[in-house]
Amino acid sequence: MSTVINDNTVALMAIRVREEHPMIHHITNSVVMNFTANITLAMGAAPVMAPSITESAEMAGYAGALLLNIGTINPELLESMLAAGKAANEKNIPIILDPVGAGATGLRTNAIATLLSELNISVIRGNAGEILSLAGTTGGIRGVDSLVSGSGKENIFMGFARETGIVTAVSGETDFITDGTNWIKVCNGNPLMGSVTGTGCGATTAAACFAASGTPLLQSVAAGIACYNIAGEIASGICRGPGSFVPEFIDQLANLTGETILNKLRIETNL
Amino acid sequence: MSTVINDNTVALMAIRVREEHPMIHHITNSVVMNFTANITLAMGAAPVMAPSITESAEMAGYAGALLLNIGTINPELLESMLAAGKAANEKNIPIILDPVGAGATGLRTNAIATLLSELNISVIRGNAGEILSLAGTTGGIRGVDSLVSGSGKENIFMGFARETGIVTAVSGETDFITDGTNWIKVCNGNPLMGSVTGTGCGATTAAACFAASGTPLLQSVAAGIACYNIAGEIASGICRGPGSFVPEFIDQLANLTGETILNKLRIETNL
Amino acid sequence: MSTVINDNTVALMAIRVREEHPMIHHITNSVVMNFTANITLAMGAAPVMAPSITESAEMAGYAGALLLNIGTINPELLESMLAAGKAANEKNIPIILDPVGAGATGLRTNAIATLLSELNISVIRGNAGEILSLAGTTGGIRGVDSLVSGSGKENIFMGFARETGIVTAVSGETDFITDGTNWIKVCNGNPLMGSVTGTGCGATTAAACFAASGTPLLQSVAAGIACYNIAGEIASGICRGPGSFVPEFIDQLANLTGETILNKLRIETNL
Repeated sequence: MSTVINDNTVALMAIRVREEHPMIHHITNSVVMNFTANITLAMGAAPVMAPSITESAEMAGYAGALLLNIGTINPELLESMLAAGKAANEKNIPIILDPVGAGATGLRTNAIATLLSELNISVIRGNAGEILSLAGTTGGIRGVDSLVSGSGKENIFMGFARETGIVTAVSGETDFITDGTNWIKVCNGNPLMGSVTGTGCGATTAAACFAASGTPLLQSVAAGIACYNIAGEIASGICRGPGSFVPEFIDQLANLTGETILNKLRIETNL
Repeated sequence: MSTVINDNTVALMAIRVREEHPMIHHITNSVVMNFTANITLAMGAAPVMAPSITESAEMAGYAGALLLNIGTINPELLESMLAAGKAANEKNIPIILDPVGAGATGLRTNAIATLLSELNISVIRGNAGEILSLAGTTGGIRGVDSLVSGSGKENIFMGFARETGIVTAVSGETDFITDGTNWIKVCNGNPLMGSVTGTGCGATTAAACFAASGTPLLQSVAAGIACYNIAGEIASGICRGPGSFVPEFIDQLANLTGETILNKLRIETNL
Repeated sequence: MSTVINDNTVALMAIRVREEHPMIHHITNSVVMNFTANITLAMGAAPVMAPSITESAEMAGYAGALLLNIGTINPELLESMLAAGKAANEKNIPIILDPVGAGATGLRTNAIATLLSELNISVIRGNAGEILSLAGTTGGIRGVDSLVSGSGKENIFMGFARETGIVTAVSGETDFITDGTNWIKVCNGNPLMGSVTGTGCGATTAAACFAASGTPLLQSVAAGIACYNIAGEIASGICRGPGSFVPEFIDQLANLTGETILNKLRIETNL
């Protein structure tokens, strides 16, 4: 794949996901299982959710990507994530981590620390508060969300990606995706998406679907999030509120064409 | 807050929820997690669902209200509810209990008895059968649902609220909310709401969102249920069945204005 | 009930479900709980989901049918299914099994083997790959999905039903339902249904709703799946994608009339 990212390469990656139909194994929170399974299908990939430790590693071995989401984590589910993650690492299957609520409780802080130390994570996607909390955990700068300017935050995100070697995607008004050296900003999206539960988790699913089908990961993760946000942007302009957003969004994602991507994509990059 | 309840005070409470954006910690059943998270957001509050005992108490400490719903209860989840509830009680965070299926099985009867004896519950919301079962458990009049007239039931509900000190909200064609001395009847709503799973649990969420933002609890719980039922009433008149009801309902709830509340509210009270 | 199946008998069975309003106890996967609860309500039955082993057997005793779905199975949930299943068997309550992902992992293979050996299962509904895997498990012909022709597969399905005494429903472009001697093909449906998570699980719910209200099981299961597929076929022609399919489908199912069944039903049978 080209290391360039533009409307053409994003459209080609979207087509590749539909052609390759990768299986995305989710070990995820119970609030968003149905929603993110339908997001996976709408992007042309195949969702599997097998949370029990008695099968999570075996199932991970068949996957194109493994998504770990700690939204309703507990100690047993963490063990299952570790087992599945080790199986994925052995087969070089990319692991995409969504650190929901990072920093909010000791359980979450410890769960993320364990996952980062025991597994080779390829991609992390979260909001600014979550990623800043992670950066603080590893670099001693906890709780800086309100203290740091926009470009200051981007430097922290790049530092975190560089130190950990993890492609880091930060959602917000503009999404910022970086591998520590290069970065891509996705300007598509709509604030209404924040009024619907699971839209953050769904962005992680989008990243996983594209990560399963293409490298380099920086470009594929940004492309997945861009397609997701374009569909959300279009749906936000059509729906009448957060309730009608959900079916409209999934329709737009399922019906997203290369032409729409060419017309709508708004990205910036230093590539 | 005024102890009066009318269209103006209900509209003001709805605005206050959107301004204060309280966090509602749900430990709830797995069937309705997604639906009630979206209800919470549509009312302007912030949902959190952290069911593991390893973090439920810590998370409860940050909440504006703690909602406990026993729809898919098990012994471990009950322990987590108790831990979260004790943390909430220590910080005077109101606890709202939804006794789903009360009286149906020994597990549920015992779970409710344990929650009522170990925790200081502020509000209970259920249907008539569930609340009559609770009243029977504490007062020896089990199984009276079909035997008792409408006003006879209301006396039982008031007696239960008076004996326990718990604001009690009973859903039905008319919703009856009482603190044992005073009562408010909410006449808004539509029978179609009964054809959608989780609409009862969602009413408990509505009560919790408003309980987090205002006292006295009798008025705030009634106001939350009234707004919820107004949105359901409007959505029922627009949708084509229980499937299209869901997105329409969440839209109406998210877009509910003070003006609509003034036009639609139908309550009776002895206040 | 007549042993004939035609548009009239299917319409009569649909009416009977609405009149009898049977309770369908689901022990099912966490991805589809909300969706299949709403499917149950839309068909006129009453969903209950009580997964904990501390109440699953007690609740099963009140049910018109018990549905077991292994989509997110784990060892504790399997024990709960066995307890509920034994209670159902004692009261001659039909058990409907959905062997999600049969053959994919050792956990699933073992879970199905245990359920089949310990319980008297009345109905199994799955896709061709799942049922072929089951047939292979009991008959030594594992992994034949791509090797066998259409009529070859039907012979395997009939053999499986005959050997086990279980009414077997196989979803696909045409659904094939057999008791080992007789068969019914349901030609209704639309490929779009495969783009929505849980539509297979929902077909099992449809089978359970009708199995609770009528015998012979071959006819009632086929009738339930036919009504389900007719609603899906109509919804697919109206919606704009897999997102808007969901509310439209549930509306169509809830509003399905005898007249629509008479106009739309397309079945073949050797009865």
